[in-house]
Amino acid sequence: MKYVGIDVGGTNLKAGLVDESGLLLATTKMKIARIDNQENLAWTMASMIQDLAEATGTGISEIASVGVGVPGAVEIRSGTVLYTCNLPLRNVPLRRLFHRYLPQPLYVENDGNCAAVGEYFTGAGRNSKRFVTVTLGTGIGGGIIHNGRIFHGSNGMAGEVGHMTIVHNGHPCPCGRKGCWEQYASASALKRLTREAMDRNPDSILCQVVAENEGNISGQSAFIAARRGDPVGQEVCRLYIEYLAAGIVNLINIFQPDTLAIGGGVSNEDDAYLLHPLQQQVERESIPCNRDKRTRVVKAQLGNDAGIIGAALLGKKKR
Amino acid sequence: MKYVGIDVGGTNLKAGLVDESGLLLATTKMKIARIDNQENLAWTMASMIQDLAEATGTGISEIASVGVGVPGAVEIRSGTVLYTCNLPLRNVPLRRLFHRYLPQPLYVENDGNCAAVGEYFTGAGRNSKRFVTVTLGTGIGGGIIHNGRIFHGSNGMAGEVGHMTIVHNGHPCPCGRKGCWEQYASASALKRLTREAMDRNPDSILCQVVAENEGNISGQSAFIAARRGDPVGQEVCRLYIEYLAAGIVNLINIFQPDTLAIGGGVSNEDDAYLLHPLQQQVERESIPCNRDKRTRVVKAQLGNDAGIIGAALLGKKKR
Repeated sequence: MKYVGIDVGGTNLKAGLVDESGLLLATTKMKIARIDNQENLAWTMASMIQDLAEATGTGISEIASVGVGVPGAVEIRSGTVLYTCNLPLRNVPLRRLFHRYLPQPLYVENDGNCAAVGEYFTGAGRNSKRFVTVTLGTGIGGGIIHNGRIFHGSNGMAGEVGHMTIVHNGHPCPCGRKGCWEQYASASALKRLTREAMDRNPDSILCQVVAENEGNISGQSAFIAARRGDPVGQEVCRLYIEYLAAGIVNLINIFQPDTLAIGGGVSNEDDAYLLHPLQQQVERESIPCNRDKRTRVVKAQLGNDAGIIGAALLGKKKR
Repeated sequence: MKYVGIDVGGTNLKAGLVDESGLLLATTKMKIARIDNQENLAWTMASMIQDLAEATGTGISEIASVGVGVPGAVEIRSGTVLYTCNLPLRNVPLRRLFHRYLPQPLYVENDGNCAAVGEYFTGAGRNSKRFVTVTLGTGIGGGIIHNGRIFHGSNGMAGEVGHMTIVHNGHPCPCGRKGCWEQYASASALKRLTREAMDRNPDSILCQVVAENEGNISGQSAFIAARRGDPVGQEVCRLYIEYLAAGIVNLINIFQPDTLAIGGGVSNEDDAYLLHPLQQQVERESIPCNRDKRTRVVKAQLGNDAGIIGAALLGKKKR
């Protein structure tokens, strides 16, 4: 049998077909902006599944189940999207709407949890029993796997690690709090830290790097400048890693997973500039314990596909 | 059968005998300072158990098991104390030492976890499935119960919620980090906030309250002053509750328990001055979800006995 995973992102709706082993056979995507109502979302999902089936010569009946990852809160039992931060989805009975078009079981899950499931079954968490993923994107997505199961809490909404305050009275967050971790350690936060450093240092190599990129500040800008020896870029990287480590150590002291994987675009930076200094800071700050029992901090392995693969495997896991 | 629970505190060693229902039948205590080596600790525990048995006319053979709560890290499988923050216990093979004196099964557990087990079985967590306790004392102890089991993480050291940074680059903590929650929301932190406010406001009612208490600042001082209408005392309470709420909301956003209980001396303050403003702030800040699915923030019910009762029930639970 085969499985479809769908990732509902802030920009794109992406779908992929995977086999029993979690191998991605084909993908398709479209702009989420083209979907203007709930009904349309379910219909689009169904038509993307049909496209994937046709492209791979797969019969629709060979698709065992479909999983959807959503950037927000969901009700797992009914397959409903409760709300999302960056999309106009509120109380969408996605499973019910989807079943007007296709009969496959539909699982709806938080996207951070999907990424964790993907990494757990086929990526950085393969040999882990207590696994946490942290995905650095527009916000910070978290996923916690405890003895092979997603840690959902009492209401399905556990794992919102990005909305953990690490800076008392810090930057306001759309969630209503101040100083949330994702205001300091997401890819968006890294861009803000970069912009602030550029404003203070208009003659820096960092400003040159951004100018070479047509003036666009990216999550890579500071790391590129740092590699060129720019002290301004190096300071941005140092500060960013300090914030990133703060939240990761919080999670380790609370969960003590055997493995914690960081994913998202930022995690692709050179290990010498991101992973290694991060690991050193985490080791310095975590509650001491025997070296062989410390949490391993590693890179996620599935890249941007983790969410799709994990969403697809939601169904496989439950068979 | 009956069960003995022992609480190894910073000041006292306390032991209690409980029945099958978790009811405390008798207690005894002694100064921990009188115990000058590891061997002595195990011997003292055994003799306290014999005292409890004699005092209640219980035969030693009627005691099914003994549980010990320790303020630090333990290795559950071997019954070893790995380290404690405020006591000179390092790598103490407590179970092995104890068995030189008594044959009962001995369970060694973190004291925050013991308090959580006590409240879960016989206190504020009786109807809970996903339960978190936060004990406000010298530090902040945490205990997480997930589907009836203590959440231990991969190495038995999970739940160190007091060592979650909430103030970036804040007060140094003995754990090596800065800005840990327990530096802002423990009973000790409340005393520090009180002292700082007194220094700034030497003519305040708060200073009178402390003078009336022979100059001793307690965790109650600011609350007493606040009830007398003192704006200085009220501001200390407001700030303390703000810090307390910050960590509690972090835990709710991460765990989404159905119930979160706060214990320790501070939690005995008037609801109007502590629990109710805390609940309001937590509700304002937590990730929104349906009202009937929100975490209930309540007071712990077993007071200082939670640790003893929970330690005793470690054995009962495992039979």
